[in-house]
Amino acid sequence: MLLEKILQNITDLDEGAMKGAQERLDILTKPPGSLGTLEVIAKQVAGITGNPLPKIGKKVVVVMAGDHGVVEEGVSAFPQEVTPQMVLNFVNGGAAINVLCRHVGAEVMIVDMGVAEDIDSPKVINRKIRKGTANMCQGPALTEDEAIKALEAGIEIAQEQINKGASLLATGDMGIGNTTPSTAILAVFSKLDLNTITGRGTGVDDEGLERKKLAIEKAIKLNQPDPENGLDVLAKVGGLEIAGLAGLILGAAANKTPIVVDGFISTAAALIAKSLNQLSVKYMIPSHGSDEPGHNLMLELLGFKPLLNLHFRLGEGTGAALGMGLVESATKILHEMATFAEAGVADGS
Amino acid sequence: MLLEKILQNITDLDEGAMKGAQERLDILTKPPGSLGTLEVIAKQVAGITGNPLPKIGKKVVVVMAGDHGVVEEGVSAFPQEVTPQMVLNFVNGGAAINVLCRHVGAEVMIVDMGVAEDIDSPKVINRKIRKGTANMCQGPALTEDEAIKALEAGIEIAQEQINKGASLLATGDMGIGNTTPSTAILAVFSKLDLNTITGRGTGVDDEGLERKKLAIEKAIKLNQPDPENGLDVLAKVGGLEIAGLAGLILGAAANKTPIVVDGFISTAAALIAKSLNQLSVKYMIPSHGSDEPGHNLMLELLGFKPLLNLHFRLGEGTGAALGMGLVESATKILHEMATFAEAGVADGS
Repeated sequence: MLLEKILQNITDLDEGAMKGAQERLDILTKPPGSLGTLEVIAKQVAGITGNPLPKIGKKVVVVMAGDHGVVEEGVSAFPQEVTPQMVLNFVNGGAAINVLCRHVGAEVMIVDMGVAEDIDSPKVINRKIRKGTANMCQGPALTEDEAIKALEAGIEIAQEQINKGASLLATGDMGIGNTTPSTAILAVFSKLDLNTITGRGTGVDDEGLERKKLAIEKAIKLNQPDPENGLDVLAKVGGLEIAGLAGLILGAAANKTPIVVDGFISTAAALIAKSLNQLSVKYMIPSHGSDEPGHNLMLELLGFKPLLNLHFRLGEGTGAALGMGLVESATKILHEMATFAEAGVADGS
Repeated sequence: MLLEKILQNITDLDEGAMKGAQERLDILTKPPGSLGTLEVIAKQVAGITGNPLPKIGKKVVVVMAGDHGVVEEGVSAFPQEVTPQMVLNFVNGGAAINVLCRHVGAEVMIVDMGVAEDIDSPKVINRKIRKGTANMCQGPALTEDEAIKALEAGIEIAQEQINKGASLLATGDMGIGNTTPSTAILAVFSKLDLNTITGRGTGVDDEGLERKKLAIEKAIKLNQPDPENGLDVLAKVGGLEIAGLAGLILGAAANKTPIVVDGFISTAAALIAKSLNQLSVKYMIPSHGSDEPGHNLMLELLGFKPLLNLHFRLGEGTGAALGMGLVESATKILHEMATFAEAGVADGS
């Protein structure tokens, strides 16, 4: 099946290309390593693409939308109808992700992975697996088959976008209630206390926060997801947009394309992708550290430090869009800076 | 005199414009405050400009260059001739700051505030006050009159650029040895231990680091700069590009224009500006947190948290250039996002 094939196709980075990029970085007119993380990213993108001098061309933020049965438990500050309303806002270009994508020159691609309502727009890719997940407090959110189908939809979208010329992908999400399954995923993988890792999402009040913790606790107790099995975690306490994003990451990795990871929901998807294939982490580039308390813990599990400290708690791919601009600037350093020899600058050695 | 007049012209931010910006932010299709620091910046720029819906047009990074007599003490990894060599690299567009300014759509303006050698290029603004500072280990780096002239040169450049249409300025620096006076400035204002705040700059070795600490200690002991008097600190242990950048900040503030502050050297200049007029801080926007150990302490003295964690230690305005892109995105949020009413999205209230 597609998922298994893709998992086998993810390889380590190209050491030769990374060495070539490093050699170039070291002769540019700056003290060695003084552009810090931009140099690390330039080298990583070289290793991902197998090209010592990679260029970023077309950039696409893939925003995946899905609904969550667990909203029945009163875990969100917003009603479920906001998911399709925001999807149409994305279509019309009025959401934060649209503004930030225009700013960095990226396209926004919107995918319905499992919104509860029907969405009638030719601009939304319909990959609806089902109309929202089941309430994970009463059983698994998804069957294993549904989780696989959603992962494979994400893989296919990555492949399609890369075939159409995308050289940098990013993850984005929309789904009322989706910090609840994301927190559950973190809880399963990290075994950390829910009081530490559960946050207010889009702004739930104190009582909602308590309901959220209880729902996560109940779902984990009832479904017993296996922390050694990412597919099991995804099906039992995940979500359709989370599955799609995990697939998108795996598809990017198998196709040697860098992917910028957004905030809390996207990083939950990244944890699923890592669980399915450890090497996939090498294809991910973190973007921002969100205000959701569990997000930094997730980033630590992946070995990441955020590039941007903007206290976002919106999702949609907003932090990843800004991160794409930074990745692009890193590759421009490789191409556009003069060497010590070209510029006639003493190199301090 | 110009400096006194400018210091009197710096006022508090426009509360009405900030209120207007906040009202707009709160009806846009996102949970209130969920764009975190971008919302804070949008409101700040509104308060600075007196416009509830400010737009960023022309962006200019002003890179000020100067040399330092203290390099005689063996405090830098690079020889002094690199200062004019890098200035010509800026002119030819091959330095990191050129690449990053092109990336964010900003202009680079280069000012010779006091390079030791003559610089022969029509593209470099000549505001040379003297050929490098005196060695602060043997007396004050600058006379008070020279420090004032350098501050006023920075003020005039800010005014000129704003008159020519700049709506966002940023600070950049070039000057072999300039982390030494910058560390001295921090030491005077913070009274912190030199072992904590002295770093390797562009990459000095262990022995050079010891020489650097000794030089700073000697300069402070000999010159006894008064921490309550920013002009005294600037003259005794500062530098010409640092003075010019402090003036640039004050000039921006007096002309109600936001200014993005780069790394260690620029933030030393910001500390001087703050000491001369506390309100000037309200016109500054931080950008990155550099790897120079004292930089975060400087940012704390200003009440700032860095937007970008990129481990830069290059200067030139490289972090500020990327910060400009973020500031511009913040103002685009105000203009381009749809409101809940426009988009037909339930606002959760």
